[in-house]
Amino acid sequence: MAIELGPNQYGKAEIRLVRVDRAGPSHDLRDLTVSVALAGDLAGTHLTGDNAGVLPTDSQKNTVYAFAAAHGIGQIEELGLRLARHFVDSQPAIHRARVSIEEHSWERIGPHSFERGSGETRTAVVTADAERSWVVCGLTGLMLLNSTGSEFRGYVKDRFTTLPETADRILATAVTARWRYAGLDVGWSKSYVDVRGSLVSAFVETYSRSLQQTLFEMGRRVLAEHEEVAEIRLSLPNKHHFLVDLTAFGVANEGEVFLAADRPYGLIEGTVQRDDAPPAGLAWW
Amino acid sequence: MAIELGPNQYGKAEIRLVRVDRAGPSHDLRDLTVSVALAGDLAGTHLTGDNAGVLPTDSQKNTVYAFAAAHGIGQIEELGLRLARHFVDSQPAIHRARVSIEEHSWERIGPHSFERGSGETRTAVVTADAERSWVVCGLTGLMLLNSTGSEFRGYVKDRFTTLPETADRILATAVTARWRYAGLDVGWSKSYVDVRGSLVSAFVETYSRSLQQTLFEMGRRVLAEHEEVAEIRLSLPNKHHFLVDLTAFGVANEGEVFLAADRPYGLIEGTVQRDDAPPAGLAWW
Amino acid sequence: MAIELGPNQYGKAEIRLVRVDRAGPSHDLRDLTVSVALAGDLAGTHLTGDNAGVLPTDSQKNTVYAFAAAHGIGQIEELGLRLARHFVDSQPAIHRARVSIEEHSWERIGPHSFERGSGETRTAVVTADAERSWVVCGLTGLMLLNSTGSEFRGYVKDRFTTLPETADRILATAVTARWRYAGLDVGWSKSYVDVRGSLVSAFVETYSRSLQQTLFEMGRRVLAEHEEVAEIRLSLPNKHHFLVDLTAFGVANEGEVFLAADRPYGLIEGTVQRDDAPPAGLAWW
Amino acid sequence: MAIELGPNQYGKAEIRLVRVDRAGPSHDLRDLTVSVALAGDLAGTHLTGDNAGVLPTDSQKNTVYAFAAAHGIGQIEELGLRLARHFVDSQPAIHRARVSIEEHSWERIGPHSFERGSGETRTAVVTADAERSWVVCGLTGLMLLNSTGSEFRGYVKDRFTTLPETADRILATAVTARWRYAGLDVGWSKSYVDVRGSLVSAFVETYSRSLQQTLFEMGRRVLAEHEEVAEIRLSLPNKHHFLVDLTAFGVANEGEVFLAADRPYGLIEGTVQRDDAPPAGLAWW
Repeated sequence: MAIELGPNQYGKAEIRLVRVDRAGPSHDLRDLTVSVALAGDLAGTHLTGDNAGVLPTDSQKNTVYAFAAAHGIGQIEELGLRLARHFVDSQPAIHRARVSIEEHSWERIGPHSFERGSGETRTAVVTADAERSWVVCGLTGLMLLNSTGSEFRGYVKDRFTTLPETADRILATAVTARWRYAGLDVGWSKSYVDVRGSLVSAFVETYSRSLQQTLFEMGRRVLAEHEEVAEIRLSLPNKHHFLVDLTAFGVANEGEVFLAADRPYGLIEGTVQRDDAPPAGLAWW
Repeated sequence: MAIELGPNQYGKAEIRLVRVDRAGPSHDLRDLTVSVALAGDLAGTHLTGDNAGVLPTDSQKNTVYAFAAAHGIGQIEELGLRLARHFVDSQPAIHRARVSIEEHSWERIGPHSFERGSGETRTAVVTADAERSWVVCGLTGLMLLNSTGSEFRGYVKDRFTTLPETADRILATAVTARWRYAGLDVGWSKSYVDVRGSLVSAFVETYSRSLQQTLFEMGRRVLAEHEEVAEIRLSLPNKHHFLVDLTAFGVANEGEVFLAADRPYGLIEGTVQRDDAPPAGLAWW
Repeated sequence: MAIELGPNQYGKAEIRLVRVDRAGPSHDLRDLTVSVALAGDLAGTHLTGDNAGVLPTDSQKNTVYAFAAAHGIGQIEELGLRLARHFVDSQPAIHRARVSIEEHSWERIGPHSFERGSGETRTAVVTADAERSWVVCGLTGLMLLNSTGSEFRGYVKDRFTTLPETADRILATAVTARWRYAGLDVGWSKSYVDVRGSLVSAFVETYSRSLQQTLFEMGRRVLAEHEEVAEIRLSLPNKHHFLVDLTAFGVANEGEVFLAADRPYGLIEGTVQRDDAPPAGLAWW
Repeated sequence: MAIELGPNQYGKAEIRLVRVDRAGPSHDLRDLTVSVALAGDLAGTHLTGDNAGVLPTDSQKNTVYAFAAAHGIGQIEELGLRLARHFVDSQPAIHRARVSIEEHSWERIGPHSFERGSGETRTAVVTADAERSWVVCGLTGLMLLNSTGSEFRGYVKDRFTTLPETADRILATAVTARWRYAGLDVGWSKSYVDVRGSLVSAFVETYSRSLQQTLFEMGRRVLAEHEEVAEIRLSLPNKHHFLVDLTAFGVANEGEVFLAADRPYGLIEGTVQRDDAPPAGLAWW
């Protein structure tokens, strides 16, 4: 038997980049966090410390800033594609590159003034090898709450079950979604806005018998309304809101006052996909 | 000489409370974090463990939930006043009560559906003693950025100064503001919205020679436009955005691409006040 | 084409459990965070909201507390195995269970008194299906630093490279390691302590030409010294320490004063494995 | 009436500084976070943007690094005193300086190798004006737990009280302590270690009828055992551990299995002081 190097990657993580577009009468502002991960013929640096194939992570960082200046950002998927292709095409030792970008939202409040938006973040993960590229878009930190229209009943009761069934509860979650596109011929900005709209409207409009049902309907609606999306993965923490029992104090509480709990929380994760989706390839690497 | 007990207080911190108002055709949602701190004749519990004057923090928590159910919330200042008065008036040993409330924003996206707003939080700190009450309102987490209209020049150059003067920089901050009201006869909701508007418009409209100048103008404008406010305290981190030097790569960067730094950061803190403001009393306790 | 449910799982996350063992003259203390994830025949709840196969996450939580009381904890791998087996064996709809446990360290400072240890956390992830179980152990938050014995030279210089080569730098990281055992006949406590020792000594004793080289040597040493380990995965952020240039002030700085940077950071990830390791099965699921 | 500038200060916050002492055969490592706040004749920059009295926060940062290189660190109180005096003595507009230092612990694991210690942080806050200096030392993040020897009984029962009395509970807290020295002729390192020892031993050895009683005893013991300390302020969150009720499952739980709660938590704050302590002056500013 022998001990060997298995899968590996390296890169610069969490490069904070703000770009001001000063071309027009009012400025535009973009605020990104970019991470790079590269893989390929990297046995040398691992086994002997021979760095002949290693592009420093510092150079990766410089590249991100230089590309943002020279080419602009456009949609984050475009920046990601440009960078991922660059690393694979220019570095002989690098066979795969992944560029992950988070975009933080700012709202305009003046020609040159901005206010940070919600904690919601738009994400794009671009992966490239010598032949092709894959794009997975997403969002994280989108907090949604329905104050009614949610029940939880008919579940398994084992010897450790004490939870009472409920016909009316608060359903709240912080959506993390990532969806894979079948190809690259996509209007990124419009697709993002529309997919987000599908997710939100499905959450709002679904009478929920379980958070799983809501999850599936969110994913199903995205696929039904967006031909360009092959697959979507959702992670939905069940942010529990417990009705506070105030009977000891002679105070009624008909679904009005809740304790918002931190931990533990339910965590519902699932994928919704087309049965004829093209293979994922390296999209999720 | 003797060793003695000095100033002290105790209470329940970070009570998470969500209230759904189901009265109308569409629900209303309120999301608060409430903290209570009580002070008074508490020497017994400190010196001998005699708890005869101690209202458990668990009871304080119950009181918060029960009051929210029985009386509703109204504006957070009203809930704070009601709770602070209750603790002082009902507990013989308690001579001072402070109730601090943070309100987290949700935006309506359906009759019973809500989306969490920005990271900005509205705050109210109510303090009561046997005779009267004080209200300090505020906000935290309001992130603002001007992409131009800010310079920094003419400062001290000592032997450790290397910073070049700049005639055009990004000015960004995360506003924490707390303002003290002269009295209690205030339309809390309108006043909050309007003070916030003064802060934001002063930040946007002030040509800034230093973040201190912006801070003072933000405070000055609040006082000038709101007679009910006696004093305002502002804490403004200078969230540095460093222009990235790309000359080595032959790439121009005319105020376009910036590195958004985490640490260290400048921290500018200041008070703006009326020279005839009534005494603060226990407002800041 | 049709839209279908893909891989999915659900469970209770971050159950905070503290257990006091009062059997002996002095107490023992254990502090865990437990997360459960279950998968199986869960199409019903997703597609129609039929929860007939769904064991509530609340019941999962109760089970964790009840098992900890009834059977004790033992090593966290044992608790994980017991729980994972229970869910698979007792729930007809559940075909796979994953129990992830973090153990937080406390040091004894008295017969019944404890002080929280470092931020380092011991981890175990147990996965079970109908036939067998897998154990992946690990640690996270182990921060290590060598103040010399690290260089970085001989790397690729492309047009975006400005980093000077260095023959002597600080090498610092926060180790996250997860190692897979070939079987279950393991002395968990001793193996954990010994693997941790191999990781630390490899970091300390390796003259490092790159963090990748250090990573590989850490993994190689674990496999070389622990027959029971089939594979190890390491994630090592390169926590940059930049030498501060003080020449402008006439102050020497020969490798003494460093700026410890937050972001961005290098991120080095890699696997070290045996070429004859048994298949991973569901270990990493 | 007029609107005027009130109290204000500015400075660089959270300067991350690591120093390696390479003098001996094995290296020494120090890891600090330093914050500076300056006050004085700063009306100009606030009122008109005239920065003639403003030493840039960037220069403050440079000064911290340069002093650490030129003079070493010594004890953090010494570095703080040196820096605070420098700013007041060298800047005509600056009348008061505060230097706050956090020291993060690393344990030696080799001649040039270190492992990060616990989350506990040693702190020092040094304040200087033209005439003199004050030192407040402290610690934060020291987590302590007694698994018995704590009761809570005999408290007020009002209409919102449901908490049952308990004769045996877990008492756990995360200590934040700050103690003021009467003068500057102190052996800082020994005093720190000894005060910390007094705090820990008082927590361990006190049979507790309330966390307030424990707090007072911790403070009292520090003052009784350390003549150089004039006053101590303690902030002790009551990190609740709730016994889990397992009777529904037929499982005994005699003080063994607890839920460690996050929020809300009790917060106990208090000062212990000498009745003949010298005035605090600007120590707490």
